[in-house]
Amino acid sequence: MVTKYTFGVPPMTEAVVVPQPSFSGMPTPFSVKEEEGKRVFSYTLGKDDLVFGLGEQMRGINKRGWIYDNWNTDDPIITEGRTSLYGAHNFILVFGEKTFGAFFDSPARVVFDIGYTDPDELTVTCGDVDVYIVEGDSAKEIVREFRRIIGSSYVPPKWAFGFAQSKWGYKNEDDVRAVWKGYRENGLPLDMIYMDIDYMQDYMDFTVNKERFPDLTALAAELKADGVYLVPIIDAAVKAKEGYHVYDDGLEKGYFCTDAEGKPFTVAVWPGESVLPDVLNPAARLWFGAQYKVLLDQGIEGFWNDMNEPAIFYSKDRLREAIVYAAGELGKDLDTDAYGALTGKFYTLANSMEDYNSFYHNSVDGRHVHAEVHNLYGYNMTRGASEYFDIYEPDRRYLLFSRSSYIGHHRYAGIWTGDNASWWSHLKLNLAMMPGLDMCGFLFAGADLGGHGGNTTEELMLRWLAFGIFAPLFRNHATQYARDQECYAFKNIGAFRSILNMRYAILPYLYSEFVKCAKSGEMLSRPVVFDYPEDARARTVEDQLMIGASIMIAPVMEQNAKGRYVYVPARMKMIRLKKGGNAFSERIVEKGDYYIEVPLDEIVFFLKEGAVMPLAKPAKNVASLDETNLRWLKFIEEPVEYEICRDDGFTKSSLSNFEKIKVEP
Amino acid sequence: MVTKYTFGVPPMTEAVVVPQPSFSGMPTPFSVKEEEGKRVFSYTLGKDDLVFGLGEQMRGINKRGWIYDNWNTDDPIITEGRTSLYGAHNFILVFGEKTFGAFFDSPARVVFDIGYTDPDELTVTCGDVDVYIVEGDSAKEIVREFRRIIGSSYVPPKWAFGFAQSKWGYKNEDDVRAVWKGYRENGLPLDMIYMDIDYMQDYMDFTVNKERFPDLTALAAELKADGVYLVPIIDAAVKAKEGYHVYDDGLEKGYFCTDAEGKPFTVAVWPGESVLPDVLNPAARLWFGAQYKVLLDQGIEGFWNDMNEPAIFYSKDRLREAIVYAAGELGKDLDTDAYGALTGKFYTLANSMEDYNSFYHNSVDGRHVHAEVHNLYGYNMTRGASEYFDIYEPDRRYLLFSRSSYIGHHRYAGIWTGDNASWWSHLKLNLAMMPGLDMCGFLFAGADLGGHGGNTTEELMLRWLAFGIFAPLFRNHATQYARDQECYAFKNIGAFRSILNMRYAILPYLYSEFVKCAKSGEMLSRPVVFDYPEDARARTVEDQLMIGASIMIAPVMEQNAKGRYVYVPARMKMIRLKKGGNAFSERIVEKGDYYIEVPLDEIVFFLKEGAVMPLAKPAKNVASLDETNLRWLKFIEEPVEYEICRDDGFTKSSLSNFEKIKVEP
Repeated sequence: MVTKYTFGVPPMTEAVVVPQPSFSGMPTPFSVKEEEGKRVFSYTLGKDDLVFGLGEQMRGINKRGWIYDNWNTDDPIITEGRTSLYGAHNFILVFGEKTFGAFFDSPARVVFDIGYTDPDELTVTCGDVDVYIVEGDSAKEIVREFRRIIGSSYVPPKWAFGFAQSKWGYKNEDDVRAVWKGYRENGLPLDMIYMDIDYMQDYMDFTVNKERFPDLTALAAELKADGVYLVPIIDAAVKAKEGYHVYDDGLEKGYFCTDAEGKPFTVAVWPGESVLPDVLNPAARLWFGAQYKVLLDQGIEGFWNDMNEPAIFYSKDRLREAIVYAAGELGKDLDTDAYGALTGKFYTLANSMEDYNSFYHNSVDGRHVHAEVHNLYGYNMTRGASEYFDIYEPDRRYLLFSRSSYIGHHRYAGIWTGDNASWWSHLKLNLAMMPGLDMCGFLFAGADLGGHGGNTTEELMLRWLAFGIFAPLFRNHATQYARDQECYAFKNIGAFRSILNMRYAILPYLYSEFVKCAKSGEMLSRPVVFDYPEDARARTVEDQLMIGASIMIAPVMEQNAKGRYVYVPARMKMIRLKKGGNAFSERIVEKGDYYIEVPLDEIVFFLKEGAVMPLAKPAKNVASLDETNLRWLKFIEEPVEYEICRDDGFTKSSLSNFEKIKVEP
Repeated sequence: MVTKYTFGVPPMTEAVVVPQPSFSGMPTPFSVKEEEGKRVFSYTLGKDDLVFGLGEQMRGINKRGWIYDNWNTDDPIITEGRTSLYGAHNFILVFGEKTFGAFFDSPARVVFDIGYTDPDELTVTCGDVDVYIVEGDSAKEIVREFRRIIGSSYVPPKWAFGFAQSKWGYKNEDDVRAVWKGYRENGLPLDMIYMDIDYMQDYMDFTVNKERFPDLTALAAELKADGVYLVPIIDAAVKAKEGYHVYDDGLEKGYFCTDAEGKPFTVAVWPGESVLPDVLNPAARLWFGAQYKVLLDQGIEGFWNDMNEPAIFYSKDRLREAIVYAAGELGKDLDTDAYGALTGKFYTLANSMEDYNSFYHNSVDGRHVHAEVHNLYGYNMTRGASEYFDIYEPDRRYLLFSRSSYIGHHRYAGIWTGDNASWWSHLKLNLAMMPGLDMCGFLFAGADLGGHGGNTTEELMLRWLAFGIFAPLFRNHATQYARDQECYAFKNIGAFRSILNMRYAILPYLYSEFVKCAKSGEMLSRPVVFDYPEDARARTVEDQLMIGASIMIAPVMEQNAKGRYVYVPARMKMIRLKKGGNAFSERIVEKGDYYIEVPLDEIVFFLKEGAVMPLAKPAKNVASLDETNLRWLKFIEEPVEYEICRDDGFTKSSLSNFEKIKVEP
């Protein structure tokens, strides 16, 4: 059951698609007060209560013990002290003495203090807001109920579940072909190669540099013939350059965000001075989406949307101010305060609140200063593309995901969790985010495997992939400053081949479970305690997940580890996949604690009692996967039926084609 | 056995005090080649070899799988991607197919690639260097042998083993008294309060701001009467201000580092423009040490030396260059490269190689550009103070520790591990560094408990203290920007009281073991595998330590954890300390894996078979600790003797006073 309480007049977010009657008064079990013009919702946590949710956010699966400031932020130095990331997913699920969900639907800043200031107090601080209290008999039911009102989740084409190689730094056709060859020549599977900002002409969206990519249509076709899709990046900001058709056209139509006086607001991002499409204006949104046509027409079927928090490197006025300030300090003996003030002028140029308070949107519900609706930007930029795809070819599923997002976005596209780093802690963070994202509808999600910033290691890359095979978005991506981290760039290519192949072996399971969950509102990745709510030990499990109906995973996430401890909450069958999924061993394990060894080229997971899981032979890409001759992992005593998705892989209408397969013990 | 090989003419470091004959030729088992003017030492690691050592460095106890760039660096954002910290401790111990130690004695940059570029290769890259190959029958013996040639470790006064509260932000006498009261009124033990840079006049070393600290002598005496010592900070750089006696005197004597033309080299640090005492010149070093007299005369008996990498905020010329460059960009449309170039001018001002290559030392072995001897600076600044203390009162032990260090430093003082952050990962890093530091002679060491930068949480603070009670330096320290993290600033003060009291309960053990290890060259904190070298599982234990002769610790280091897994490598007695050490329970555990629950106010550790451990009643400070009526934790079947240190707590000469106590089963 959902009860909606409205406080003030929150800007429209369209996060919720099943209209709810709105109440005023106390959103039980929270109490409310006003403080410094903000609303503060409070709830006293039980001693052992857990708090789940918040999607893309810091810390563990259980969010208790930290403060979270949901304000979409482009800052790649994601240390433990951070409180904001690239997405704002304002849903929490309190699990304990009382179990309930709460969605704070406000596109401005929302701060969740979950036992940070006071270990026993949960407070949520925000401006005008719709609060949805979600009740149900179990955590799973609460999530289903929440997912019901926010609408069902985006499903990409099936090839998007293959393995993807990406890097900021593939500068031309030869670089792209070298990656393709690198995978194929080493017998490594591959379904996608991503193109980062270098394919564009001067970082202008919807252009292609003709010198470095003389014939994108031909290149896309050449790769697609081998089952490899090219996936270009699209940035939020549009270069402010006369003669650039997107700029000229948008300017004429009045589709860019404006300053207080109604003139286009200039920010600087990759291409230098730029303007921001006003994607909160439905006409401008669709207009921006329609720009994707130029790439669709060249055979492109997938896109990733970036810099759409929106990220701002600097604005013209504030840069001028900083330079003028610096000039005034020339020749002075600066003490630490004066020096801090000077460098601070430059350090704080990016993503400043001053800028976010200086431009405006013409939204459906009126003119809003950006800061009031900040967290909706990436969502609506991405929605624009999705809305246009529905026009371009209505029944076709395109690959589309974004860096920034808000709840609602999950209906149109997926997300990646932004610019992480090659740190073991970010592998753990990747795992910890998955169930929170799932609760908020983001099923097609994943992190940059191996880590985006900094240098990875062979071991980290392998362990990260071994977790990543269970995440819908399975992409290796890094910056141009990082060491090469394509799987063939390492020494033990055999281990990489084994792990990548396993992804394809489990793909029939992962894909079928994904499609079922997208339709039903069930969770694909769940905290272990959701399946074993009465198990006290399961409450504290932070490094294992339930994936789909049948299995529990327990990846190795420590450097130099030969294995790891696993808590098995009920009798299960331990499966050890070997040799790319071509071989496996199994062993029944009783409820309890285990130390398991996991070599770098193997994967261990656990099959629930009564469950089965299909396993395919590995393939070089999704297109060549043989799903007729499936093997079955099973822990059953009676025959069971397993529903496997038999869609065509790319149309929406075929998504309901399921085959029920009877599996004998 | 130690064999020394000399390559080129490395600057004198005085790291090794037992002279060794010098050989030329291949430092077996390494091979050597020259590459780009550097020497590259290589060793192929066995598949399961572990590599220990490197003291204050990143990653785990086992250093394999990363690259380490030993170059003392002031940068408090200590992410997993970092390769340099505040200290350079160039000793490694390879443990496996061959077990041996190697010390690369060079005060310039030394890079250890330990299976990063190639998982199986260890390479060490540096300039001129003395390489010491250390052999022995076991890891422990190799460490003893290395510690023998580098000389025995510093022992502080006994009160320095008490609990210390520190914060950058105690601005005046009232702030200091409020901390003292906060601890005493809440029944929390305390032995020290630290004074950060705010006690000085305009950040000038050896001055006291008379407005905020009108009578330091009286304040120090008032606190000392309650067993609380005031410990001021000393910075490396001296404000360049005429009329400031330290500056005037040093200038006259020619004791500051100079530029290429022999003029004092100006850098900016806290006080603005400053000069660097040339602590590599023995006369200048002792002169700088003699400056501490002004504080010793006011009753101060302990100091911490900071900013001695040496940290440089900016140099005059490069700041001017940055400002002029910025002015040239005024009004331009900067694309991402141009913008990066502009902000880069400011981002790279601090600690630049250009500056480190621009000033010189008059060392005993001649004039050196700073970059050639960089890693010796903190060591020699600190040595100067120690050398002066020997003159001021020869038999007295003073508390002295430093941020930056090099091997050799351990004979004169301790270290703290620099400006960490309030991250769970830094609690783990704290544990991981301890055995590496120990191998290099740094027994008096510890991290800023609770974390220095950023905001801690009550749970992190408690768990960190619960580990910290086993580290010799036991100090809570934070920046002025952090939330209050004094133990009385949290909700569950009872839990803090319990944990702090436990430190005092185990202090007779920790102190006795410390003094024994400082004299014998035994390790106080050891990897578990050092005690159980034949145990394959013990090789991968990264979150437990052996502490002293009798115990193994296994602290909880995960947020929201109720307990943790422990690998018990042999039959042991599990001890659960409760109620501040006033109570405990015990249970014999066989070799194997355990999940143990550990509430926030308890500590669990493991007593080895055949071992005993004294336990005192908690006390409000070290001075009031009753060490005559000891209780004993014991896991023995026969009587054993335990040697307990019975020194007076502050003289060097009394350090050999041990009492042998016979403990009955």
